[in-house]
Amino acid sequence: MSILFISDVDSFDNWDAVFRSKDPRAQLVECEDVDDPASIEYALAWNPPDGLLARLPRLKAIFSLGAGVDHILRDHTLPKGVPIVRAVDTNLAMRMAEYVVLHCLILSRQQRRLDAQQVKRLWVSELPVFSSDVRVGIMGLGHLGRYVAERLRDIGFQVAGWSTGHKEIPEVASFAGEGELASFLQRTDILVSLLPHTPKTHGFIGTSILRQLSRDGVLGGPAFISVGRGTVHVEDDIVEALDDGFLSAAVLDVFEREPLPEGSPLWRHPRVTVTPHCAAVTDPRSIVSSVLANIARLERGDSLENVVNVERGY
Amino acid sequence: MSILFISDVDSFDNWDAVFRSKDPRAQLVECEDVDDPASIEYALAWNPPDGLLARLPRLKAIFSLGAGVDHILRDHTLPKGVPIVRAVDTNLAMRMAEYVVLHCLILSRQQRRLDAQQVKRLWVSELPVFSSDVRVGIMGLGHLGRYVAERLRDIGFQVAGWSTGHKEIPEVASFAGEGELASFLQRTDILVSLLPHTPKTHGFIGTSILRQLSRDGVLGGPAFISVGRGTVHVEDDIVEALDDGFLSAAVLDVFEREPLPEGSPLWRHPRVTVTPHCAAVTDPRSIVSSVLANIARLERGDSLENVVNVERGY
Repeated sequence: MSILFISDVDSFDNWDAVFRSKDPRAQLVECEDVDDPASIEYALAWNPPDGLLARLPRLKAIFSLGAGVDHILRDHTLPKGVPIVRAVDTNLAMRMAEYVVLHCLILSRQQRRLDAQQVKRLWVSELPVFSSDVRVGIMGLGHLGRYVAERLRDIGFQVAGWSTGHKEIPEVASFAGEGELASFLQRTDILVSLLPHTPKTHGFIGTSILRQLSRDGVLGGPAFISVGRGTVHVEDDIVEALDDGFLSAAVLDVFEREPLPEGSPLWRHPRVTVTPHCAAVTDPRSIVSSVLANIARLERGDSLENVVNVERGY
Repeated sequence: MSILFISDVDSFDNWDAVFRSKDPRAQLVECEDVDDPASIEYALAWNPPDGLLARLPRLKAIFSLGAGVDHILRDHTLPKGVPIVRAVDTNLAMRMAEYVVLHCLILSRQQRRLDAQQVKRLWVSELPVFSSDVRVGIMGLGHLGRYVAERLRDIGFQVAGWSTGHKEIPEVASFAGEGELASFLQRTDILVSLLPHTPKTHGFIGTSILRQLSRDGVLGGPAFISVGRGTVHVEDDIVEALDDGFLSAAVLDVFEREPLPEGSPLWRHPRVTVTPHCAAVTDPRSIVSSVLANIARLERGDSLENVVNVERGY
């Protein structure tokens, strides 16, 4: 079958090689090599140009190349009735957990302070903060959020999650909906955003959310880690909360505009860590297996797994 | 019962408060307040001065205040037949795991490179190294080593351990004795030393051990993390292996001399992280409970738990 590959960031050759190694019948093609749009049955897409997918008359499914589908749903001409499939991938979840555990530990173990002391050759014995005294709160408890919550819990953090409905995860407190948002924020020292970008979450994490975080924690002020989508947070509000001493630190992997503009104050803020949207990068080896398994389900008449609810936006 | 508190680093008041809160009958005393040495039944010690413990005629047990007992065993006048008890403490193991997981993730996720890029406002998209491609090897698989190995495994690292005898830990490869040392080192990208200080391990991790580490890994050269005892590694050999490009990084929490002398080249080495022996600091809340439980065992005629084998040194 012919699979159209559309991406403004990923390498065609890389993905093509993985497809070839897994299933010789899967034929990955680039846009410029398509002679007959009706030959394309599947699309594997990251940030497809508006209108492109609508021009494929026999398209059976659209697979997202990475976490989130906002980069597909913003095209308002998407062909009706063609299912959109999320990239659900344990590898992606492992990468995200590595990143969030790493940065929660840098914060709780005060590695930035220790680094500064090393520069000054200062040997200061201080009792470190214990992760078991630090309350991490994760916004968004889907496939990724659940996995991240479990790994933070394994290391010893006090973990809670907030999502639209309650989730049962052993030793992870569950908060749901608008009604429980305030209690969730008030028990949180490190807020982790793993929210998808939808019309409802656009600009959601700004002053009013951030200022409800706990001031009683062991970190000298709450911290914020943004790894879902940059359009969910408000960068001006984050900088303001850092500058007036409310927030103790921010770790941002996603931004309102990417790449982060050179003039952004985030780059040089002493209490901000900036990383270039690298927290959870799709591993072709893992995604290709799940795309091929899903195509096989469809071809034998079963229903696709991980289909996006377009109304909900994820 | 009277418990003598001996420490050159810990605060008496802090420990005294915890003892009072847990058992009002437990009376913690400082050396200068001891009128009658025969009134002391137990000692809780960190780095006790030579000969001090020998002057307590009715001593029933010596408890170590922190991980390791080398700081007690180096006193050659220790009273014969008085058991020495290790601090076995899940809290201590949790702290150690936090530290080792943190630094293995800083290495695998190349956070130091990302930090340097941030300073230059550089947005560079590069596929991060996956922890599942990084092989961590732990020397010393006692109570602490086992716990650290399990947490590294949970995050996704490929973990192996080396110890005097084989250990069974799910999904952690076990290597034992001199016969399997070379194979252990050859499969290791990040070497973690959790060895106790004994006559056998003194200066053990030097050029000949370090140069057997894997050069084929994904980190651009092997790395070394030292968290057991600084007397186990050879600092000149570490610096040499870093300077000639064999080692890619070193993370040291323990040193041949502590505090680390100001003149040490380790402080300012660009690929060395120095922390002030803070990886696993004893939490009085947790140690006091286990000391009191052990004293209760002895008082009711049961045998003590976690008694040190003095011959073996741990």
